[in-house]
Amino acid sequence: MCELLGMNANVPTDIRFSFAALARRGGATGPHRDGWGISFYEGRGARMFHDPQPSAHSEIARLLRDYPLKSEIVIAHVRRANRGRVALENTHPFSREIWGRTITFAHNGQLKGVKQKPLGLYRPIGTTDSEYAFCWIIGRLHKQFPDLPSHAQLQAALEKLCKELAKLGVFNILMSDGRSLYAFCTKKLYYIVRKAPFGVATLVDEDLRVDFSKETTPKDRVAVIASNPLTRDEVWSTLPLGQLTVFRNGAPSLRA
Amino acid sequence: MCELLGMNANVPTDIRFSFAALARRGGATGPHRDGWGISFYEGRGARMFHDPQPSAHSEIARLLRDYPLKSEIVIAHVRRANRGRVALENTHPFSREIWGRTITFAHNGQLKGVKQKPLGLYRPIGTTDSEYAFCWIIGRLHKQFPDLPSHAQLQAALEKLCKELAKLGVFNILMSDGRSLYAFCTKKLYYIVRKAPFGVATLVDEDLRVDFSKETTPKDRVAVIASNPLTRDEVWSTLPLGQLTVFRNGAPSLRA
Repeated sequence: MCELLGMNANVPTDIRFSFAALARRGGATGPHRDGWGISFYEGRGARMFHDPQPSAHSEIARLLRDYPLKSEIVIAHVRRANRGRVALENTHPFSREIWGRTITFAHNGQLKGVKQKPLGLYRPIGTTDSEYAFCWIIGRLHKQFPDLPSHAQLQAALEKLCKELAKLGVFNILMSDGRSLYAFCTKKLYYIVRKAPFGVATLVDEDLRVDFSKETTPKDRVAVIASNPLTRDEVWSTLPLGQLTVFRNGAPSLRA
Repeated sequence: MCELLGMNANVPTDIRFSFAALARRGGATGPHRDGWGISFYEGRGARMFHDPQPSAHSEIARLLRDYPLKSEIVIAHVRRANRGRVALENTHPFSREIWGRTITFAHNGQLKGVKQKPLGLYRPIGTTDSEYAFCWIIGRLHKQFPDLPSHAQLQAALEKLCKELAKLGVFNILMSDGRSLYAFCTKKLYYIVRKAPFGVATLVDEDLRVDFSKETTPKDRVAVIASNPLTRDEVWSTLPLGQLTVFRNGAPSLRA
């Protein structure tokens, strides 16, 4: 299995505190030592870093722990291989261009028989079920929407495709088009929304503590999504199962 | 304008020496301060680093100068913006998936009216002429070859497309599908092939010297391509103008 980390904020925000926890789980406090990756959206562009080394011992991960890249949407993943050997092309997040936008995708779970599904335009580069599922999703989206759809259209279509894949196994994902952060969850994903009044938080995985009130303005709002809570002194909520949750401007659109 | 750097080797090879020179040209010894990027192929995967900061002062460039990533094919670029603002999405190399492979592309030059050309499946994310030209090329290739073509088919088709774009202006490019490194040159691109007996070389841009005989085996062969020679004590050749040169296993396929 693997662990996911996502962030969506209403202002460009530094993910280093949360990433420090995730990176530890890649070979130190967790067994997810088969590579890692992270995407940072900056406007229409996205920076991506991938490494088949364990994140706990990766030089590139160390750089990112020290270097304050700010972003409104981040997706990160530490991998424990089940399908697909340990290799750069099998590290998440996967990305493709569709509608002149960079779409990124990371997955936790296994999908029995996903490779029976016929692909459209997009083909996997590596051999994971996850990348195959991603290519299937965006192939279907591209067929349905030759041009960029509205938020509502995309959300409805994506939820339908996620529900179809969820029939094949565990399908916890984070995905983004640079406008929204999408989360679909069949087993577990936790999230927290931090906003004023900001407090103090301490990581689960190492003795690192931050006072968010010193790093933020009262208007800031940041949602963090993770496979397991990253901090020990905050209350994390679980995402609803079997439906798509959309994060935009630092908050989820939850349904009653 | 911009500067290009490419490498093709018959064994995974460390590019740090050459990259050190290119990185200096992004804001120190050269005016190409509007961002930079680099792609390292590792099997079917590719690591990419992009930064809109000047490479001479970039933290990520500094990491890459210290961290020995080995690769058989590398494409790097330092940018001086003419079309398209300074932004992450406008930094080269650009990349797309086609035939389940990562294709990367970097360009030096300007192409008058390229945006009049109708695109196929691939759309630009940023606003440069260069990315538009890349999307046009791979859209045409995808239309002509729904599945991965042979080396010879791809080479012939790509050369034809490059010649068509070269009518619009300066079109010096490096491009790769992870199997070959393609270079097309309308103005200037230099190259050198290093093989046994290996000697000593000194950079043009800083007082850095390397003895390749200490870092290589007698079977190693490495071709380096650059907009301007990177070393002061080696003989660099110019690439033939107006035709596609293909580098594979560390050597160019030059025609008589």
